[in-house]
Amino acid sequence: MTMLPAPVTRVAATAFRHGGIAAISRALPEEAAVALSYDQVGYAVMMATPSDLEDFAVGFSLSEGIVERPADILDCEIVMVEQGIECRMRLAHDVSARLAQRRRHLAGALGCGLCGLESLAEANRAIPRVGSSLSIAAPALMRAMREMSARQTLNRQAHGIHAAAFLDPTDQSVLVREDVGRHNALDKVVGGLARAQRSGGSGAILLTSRVSIELIQKAALLGAPILIAVSVPTAHALRAAEAAGITLAAVARDDGFEVFTHPSRIRFGVETHVA
Amino acid sequence: MTMLPAPVTRVAATAFRHGGIAAISRALPEEAAVALSYDQVGYAVMMATPSDLEDFAVGFSLSEGIVERPADILDCEIVMVEQGIECRMRLAHDVSARLAQRRRHLAGALGCGLCGLESLAEANRAIPRVGSSLSIAAPALMRAMREMSARQTLNRQAHGIHAAAFLDPTDQSVLVREDVGRHNALDKVVGGLARAQRSGGSGAILLTSRVSIELIQKAALLGAPILIAVSVPTAHALRAAEAAGITLAAVARDDGFEVFTHPSRIRFGVETHVA
Repeated sequence: MTMLPAPVTRVAATAFRHGGIAAISRALPEEAAVALSYDQVGYAVMMATPSDLEDFAVGFSLSEGIVERPADILDCEIVMVEQGIECRMRLAHDVSARLAQRRRHLAGALGCGLCGLESLAEANRAIPRVGSSLSIAAPALMRAMREMSARQTLNRQAHGIHAAAFLDPTDQSVLVREDVGRHNALDKVVGGLARAQRSGGSGAILLTSRVSIELIQKAALLGAPILIAVSVPTAHALRAAEAAGITLAAVARDDGFEVFTHPSRIRFGVETHVA
Repeated sequence: MTMLPAPVTRVAATAFRHGGIAAISRALPEEAAVALSYDQVGYAVMMATPSDLEDFAVGFSLSEGIVERPADILDCEIVMVEQGIECRMRLAHDVSARLAQRRRHLAGALGCGLCGLESLAEANRAIPRVGSSLSIAAPALMRAMREMSARQTLNRQAHGIHAAAFLDPTDQSVLVREDVGRHNALDKVVGGLARAQRSGGSGAILLTSRVSIELIQKAALLGAPILIAVSVPTAHALRAAEAAGITLAAVARDDGFEVFTHPSRIRFGVETHVA
């Protein structure tokens, strides 16, 4: 693999504080243009933190519905090019054919804009319903949020970097990924789980950010029945979580959190271990 | 004009704090799918706060380079539709023809993906260079940041909502716009200035968010020579600001801020009024 840029860069700056000025040094998050291509045809370019890019490529492909399972991606090569980074994926034959057809459809529609959502209908695409009897004790969720926070190694160096994570309550493990983009961070978690052949249906998604509707869409596609975030959801995301059967918790702080939808999956009582 | 959804919605939730649970009510930011169309052809759909949408439509059109001046948009109608909100714009004849040609090109290229950036080259498109001898006293910038903060009326109700603003140092006026998306908030400022026939070259952009490269691109297109933000810039945004001749300040707090590029436009000495 080629050497990627470091995800954090140190720069010189001038600090103006309390009326005085001083030369300082500060670590900033890097951000790179990451192109995702399938069978040598470019699909999208995202600005992202150059770390865990195989996870990102696989997670993005799953979240966008380009592939249904990681095995549909035969290989993924991360290559530094002049203007950024390319994630070059090769797809299984039938998946590749389906994508080519989709491209032809998009091109024919002529409605594809810079944000790429072709229409309001696409923005409001149906979200799969998550049916799961999983429940998690509130203190276990709080412990996982603390663990995610402790493991934001890039953000501790540079600030301004989001994290997403997945708590598996059976072994209390927490998979953490970081990115300047909160959507990318979640896609990296989706990809990290898929590459480890783990199911998203068995645990909770944790986010450092606020919750917009796209994050609910990604969680629903993953099949995760619980999502908890540090900041607030939008009202639109709340309605989507309600409809998708996802337990949405937010405003998670040291003293607790708030639950907006389907609270029955959270056990508020004294923590007990599942037999 | 049709009744738009309120930008803030109050919902019921369950709070789990300090080990106890309680029923609470919380105001959340609304988020709506906003479709932008030109001459009855859809261009893009953005998730945005349903407020100041005329400013958003005009600002987006300028930032995306669809129009060069607000007069190219003959009218803009904001319409509630079943799945969201449509900003229906009618363009001057020659501008409309140019856009139709651009659409054909995009369709022909077949490379247009969901994020819509066709290629790494487009992601790294040349940023216009801002040449301006404007300078602003550091205390005036701090005062403007405090004013923006005081005027985040939606965010004070609901949290999770960004603001962008424009400081005109000649009369110390601050134009403030809010949105759940930080790019949208800046586009609303760009549109608000344009609709008031004010130039972006004569003042500073203020942001509550961190600074990614797209925000530098928008500031450069606007011609704003100074940009100051509450959070950090990415290293990529810093390089873009350096190249575009933009003074980039960030980590703005009550006690001051840090300057990363072209510091000569900020007067750190004792504040004096321009004659």
